[in-house]
Amino acid sequence: MIEDKNPQRTPLSELGEFKLIEHLTEHFEVKQQSTIKSVGDDAAVLNPKGQIVVTTDMLVEGVHFDLSYVPLKHLGYKAIMVNLSDVCAMNAIPTQVTVSIAVSNRFPLEALEELYAGILHASKIYNVDVVGGDTTSSTSGLIISVTAIGEVNEDNVVMRNGAKPNDLLVVSGDLGGAYMGLQVLEREKEVFKVNPNTQPDLSMYSYIIERQLKPEARKDIVELLAKLEVKPTSMIDISDGLSSEIMHLCKQSNVGCDLYENKIPLDPQVISTCEEFNIDSTTIALNGGEDYELLMTISQEDYPKIKGNPNLTVIGYITEPEKGAHLVTRAETKIPIIAKGWKSFNSETE
Amino acid sequence: MIEDKNPQRTPLSELGEFKLIEHLTEHFEVKQQSTIKSVGDDAAVLNPKGQIVVTTDMLVEGVHFDLSYVPLKHLGYKAIMVNLSDVCAMNAIPTQVTVSIAVSNRFPLEALEELYAGILHASKIYNVDVVGGDTTSSTSGLIISVTAIGEVNEDNVVMRNGAKPNDLLVVSGDLGGAYMGLQVLEREKEVFKVNPNTQPDLSMYSYIIERQLKPEARKDIVELLAKLEVKPTSMIDISDGLSSEIMHLCKQSNVGCDLYENKIPLDPQVISTCEEFNIDSTTIALNGGEDYELLMTISQEDYPKIKGNPNLTVIGYITEPEKGAHLVTRAETKIPIIAKGWKSFNSETE
Repeated sequence: MIEDKNPQRTPLSELGEFKLIEHLTEHFEVKQQSTIKSVGDDAAVLNPKGQIVVTTDMLVEGVHFDLSYVPLKHLGYKAIMVNLSDVCAMNAIPTQVTVSIAVSNRFPLEALEELYAGILHASKIYNVDVVGGDTTSSTSGLIISVTAIGEVNEDNVVMRNGAKPNDLLVVSGDLGGAYMGLQVLEREKEVFKVNPNTQPDLSMYSYIIERQLKPEARKDIVELLAKLEVKPTSMIDISDGLSSEIMHLCKQSNVGCDLYENKIPLDPQVISTCEEFNIDSTTIALNGGEDYELLMTISQEDYPKIKGNPNLTVIGYITEPEKGAHLVTRAETKIPIIAKGWKSFNSETE
Repeated sequence: MIEDKNPQRTPLSELGEFKLIEHLTEHFEVKQQSTIKSVGDDAAVLNPKGQIVVTTDMLVEGVHFDLSYVPLKHLGYKAIMVNLSDVCAMNAIPTQVTVSIAVSNRFPLEALEELYAGILHASKIYNVDVVGGDTTSSTSGLIISVTAIGEVNEDNVVMRNGAKPNDLLVVSGDLGGAYMGLQVLEREKEVFKVNPNTQPDLSMYSYIIERQLKPEARKDIVELLAKLEVKPTSMIDISDGLSSEIMHLCKQSNVGCDLYENKIPLDPQVISTCEEFNIDSTTIALNGGEDYELLMTISQEDYPKIKGNPNLTVIGYITEPEKGAHLVTRAETKIPIIAKGWKSFNSETE
C-alpha cells in the first residue's frame, strides 16, 4: 500500500506535464540501432530492418490489477511484459515500446517513479527502447497503455493460422502458476483486512507469486527456436488460459487437436497450492491465464530438434478439423475443450 | 447525451471481449500496402518502406472530453486526428493506427458502435489502417489510447531541433477556433442545465464548434510541402497552443524568435466570438490549444515557394538564442512569450 511505503509525497501538479515526462524518462537510454529518435519530438523515428510487428495492451486499475498487493514497480514491469509477450508470439524480437499512463491526483510523484522504475528495469533486461508515451491525469485510478514493436525477418513471422494436422502441440515453461499466485494474494488480502497486524509467510508460494506479479515474456524461447532452427507452424502467447489459446489456434488454422492432460507441465508449487485450495490443477492450467508462456505447433519433422529440451513440452497434436478440439484425460476419456479464458467484461457472462 | 440518442441498449457483457472486438472492427479494411497482417493475431505485421514514426496519445473522459456535449462519433474521429497530427508534424504520412479503449459498463454496445463509426470514418478519409487494439472494461468512464504509425523517407524527416536564425516562422490554417468552440459548448451546457428545453441556435458558431469537435490533421500540408519541394527546418503540431509550441521549437533548436501579433491568422468567427466573450483573441491564439495546425520554420530561400499560399502564413522569424522569444504587439512593443499551454495536471498550477 503506497501510503505506507512512501512517506515523501510530491503532488504531480507541482511539476506539470512536460516536466513530469522529462523527469520520468530521464534514465531511459537508446539501445536499439533502429531507434533514430526517441522521446522528445512529436513522434519517435525508427529505421527497422525487415518487417515489424505492432501490438498494444491496456491495464486498468480495479480490472487488471489491485494496488493493495501489486507493488507499482512490478506493475510497470508487467505492463511491458504482457506486450513483449505478444511480440514474441509472432516469433519476433521486441525492440521498442511506448508507454501512456493516466493517473489520478491521489498518486504522488514517488508512486510514478516506482512505476517507471519497473518499466526501466524491463526495458533494460529485454533490451527494448522506451521511445514515447503520454502522461495525463485520470478522474479515478491508474491506467497503463503500452504499445510494443518488434523486428522479424519476413520469412520468420509465425501467425496463428499455420497449424496442420499431425503437427505437435508444444508449450514453453509451465502453466497455472500466475493464477494460483493470484489466489494466494487475494486470500492474504482478506486476512489483512481482518487483522492488519498479521505478517504472512509467503515463502512457500514464492514461485507462483512471482509468476503473478513479475511474469516474463519468453524472448528466450524465440531465440532458442532460432538457434534450434525450428520455425513453428503457428504460435500464440498464453494470456487468457491454455484452453482459450488452443481454441484460437484451432479456429484460425481450421484444425482440431488432442491435448493430453497428463502432459500439461505443472510446477510442484502449483500442484501443492491447488491441493491446499482444493482446486483441480488441470482446470487451473486450462483456464487460469496470465502465464505468458508460448503455445505453438511444430512440424513432426522438427521433433528431434526439440526432443528433451527442458523449455519445451509436447502436450498433444493437431488433428483434422472435423475431429474437433479435445482434452484426453488421465482416465483416457475425451472431452471437448471449451474456451473459458479470463474476460474483463465478465459481470454477466462466465 | 447517449441515453437520449440510443433507445437500444445492448450490455457489453452480452458479447464478451473477443466477440466485441470482432464486431467493432468488422468494417475495417486494409488499404496500405505496408500492412501485411491486420487485426486478428497476437500482433499486426507491417512492412514499411523507409523510416517510420510512432506516436501515442491518450484521451480520458472528464479530463480531455465531456460526453455531455461531445458526440461519441466525433470523439472517435478526434482520437485518431490528434495522433495523425503528430505523425504529420514529423513530415510523415500516417499509415496505421492501433486503438485501445477502456469503458465502463454504463456504456451500451451501441455507444461503442458510434465511437468506432468515428474511428472508421477517420481511417477511411485519411487512408490509414486500424491494425490492432485492446478493448477492456474500466471502473469508471471512457479512456481511449491510440498509437499512430507513419512512413517517411529518411531525408524528409523534420524534427523540432532544426530551426536556424533568419528562418521564417510559418503556421498552417488559423488559430484559436478550437478553444472558442469549447467556450461556446461549455456555455450552452450551463444553459441546458438551467433549462433543458432550450434548443440553442449554434449556426453562427459552426466553424469554431467543428474545430473543437472534429479537428483535422494537416496531412494535406505534408503533401503540399512535398509538392512545393519545401522541407521545413523544424516542425511541431499545435496541440497545446502557439506559445507553448514556439517555446518547444526555440528550446530544442536553441534559437529565439520574433512573433508578430498582427500576422497571427484568425478566422472572423474567432474574432467575433472573442468579442462576445470579452476575451483577447491574441491570448486565445497563443494559449488556446487543440487547433492541430502545423507550426514550422522555413529557410528564407524557400520563401518564394510558399509566398501567397492561402494555407501557410508567415507569422515571424527565428533569431539568435540570446535574443529570446518575443511577441511583437500591434503597438510594436516586444513582450516575452511564456508557454501557458493546456495542461492536464492543472489543479494547482496555471
